Amino acid sequence: MCELLAMSANTPTDLCFSFTGLTRRGGATGPHKDGWGVAFYEGHGVRAFHDADASAHSRIAEVVQTHPIKSEVAICHIRQANVGEICLANTHPFIRELWGRYWVFAHNGQLKAFRGSRDFYEPVGSTDSEALFCDILNHLRRHCDRNTPDEDLVARLVNLSRHYAREGVFNLLLSNGEWLFTYCTTKMASITRRAPFGPARLRDADVTVDFESETTPDDIVSVIVTEPLTTDETWDIYEPGEWRLWRKGEVVQSGRADARPD
Amino acid sequence: MCELLAMSANTPTDLCFSFTGLTRRGGATGPHKDGWGVAFYEGHGVRAFHDADASAHSRIAEVVQTHPIKSEVAICHIRQANVGEICLANTHPFIRELWGRYWVFAHNGQLKAFRGSRDFYEPVGSTDSEALFCDILNHLRRHCDRNTPDEDLVARLVNLSRHYAREGVFNLLLSNGEWLFTYCTTKMASITRRAPFGPARLRDADVTVDFESETTPDDIVSVIVTEPLTTDETWDIYEPGEWRLWRKGEVVQSGRADARPD
Repeated sequence: MCELLAMSANTPTDLCFSFTGLTRRGGATGPHKDGWGVAFYEGHGVRAFHDADASAHSRIAEVVQTHPIKSEVAICHIRQANVGEICLANTHPFIRELWGRYWVFAHNGQLKAFRGSRDFYEPVGSTDSEALFCDILNHLRRHCDRNTPDEDLVARLVNLSRHYAREGVFNLLLSNGEWLFTYCTTKMASITRRAPFGPARLRDADVTVDFESETTPDDIVSVIVTEPLTTDETWDIYEPGEWRLWRKGEVVQSGRADARPD
Repeated sequence: MCELLAMSANTPTDLCFSFTGLTRRGGATGPHKDGWGVAFYEGHGVRAFHDADASAHSRIAEVVQTHPIKSEVAICHIRQANVGEICLANTHPFIRELWGRYWVFAHNGQLKAFRGSRDFYEPVGSTDSEALFCDILNHLRRHCDRNTPDEDLVARLVNLSRHYAREGVFNLLLSNGEWLFTYCTTKMASITRRAPFGPARLRDADVTVDFESETTPDDIVSVIVTEPLTTDETWDIYEPGEWRLWRKGEVVQSGRADARPD
């Protein structure tokens, strides 16, 4: 069904520890071997790595694990294909430009019957996920503009998410580089690490990190996942229908938006 | 002023040899140290690598040099900044989706005074190059559709290129994954390698390859550059104003379109 990973931080931070844990689930400790991708914001730019190979055995993934790329927002996805063949074009995260900013999207779930309308943005691949991303951006483009307050954008994202969740499983990560919108239909968890930092051990690899030696006292780094990555920390589990908007490592808005009743 | 590199081939081919030579010019044998990027088509998908660091000293570039990524179309750029600061968002090649396909663009030159109109696509960074790319796509989007014959699209690209070349230096690489459009204002060269293949030696590194051992008799692989990469081959030099449309390693259309007179 795929697994998601995102980071929101108040200081440029690398994802190596979490990425190492997640990518093991792509063909070693887990079945999500049908491609992987990660996108890191750096200023307004985005540095992305995509591969249709299993993340646990990908040389490019190995580079990302060992080459610290610092970012305040990152989105990562390991895929277990259901809708759409295994190929590069079907590998999340998907990226589009809207109002002069890159928007990055990854999705866990399945909306088999979903067909977006053809509009500004169209999917290149054949996944329901990319079609959903295009549908979201088409909606925002049609109903909003670059000056629309974030609260209004987010309200629309919540309503759209609720609508999609009626049709299937829709766990979402979406960022425009400034904020990170997360929506849970079935499975999502988060952890916010701040001073005093401590150690953590990955569940999927024999790797421990001592965050205190990697951080300053002012750092706030939050990690959002499908399934917790560490064995010795307390993760905050989302409720079904819960959404959280992250900015610089903190939740700045949140709510509960269950699937609209028929 | 930057250097360009593209490949058009009739069979998935890696760019390691040419990429190794070009990236030396990004901070070792040449001054184009203000970022680099490369995009490889794989089916309809695009695998891209971007870095604001000098290519000659970039670990990610080293991975691309040594990790064969096979593609029929690739576009690469090493940057010497003039318009726009050095940062990831200003690093070519730029990528946008149009009509459900990824379009990839890189530019060598400078059009200091260029300001595109705000329309569907907008630049994320601050380069004239990205603004030009958006202008091209906005024009195609406005005046064409997905069923417009390639000849008509190309005619528009030629006219646009001629128009831009009036305002400055406009050497262009543009692909939609099926064809590769190349336009020369000042400097461009190409080589088409086909059977019987022979050896080649890079100008910028002590690297020789014997293409015969890497290919089959049916392979056709063309490389288009700003400045020839090898010392022992005969490169075909573009005339100023010359354009060539490449498909599967061959020129399928070409012409001469000098800058429009005032």
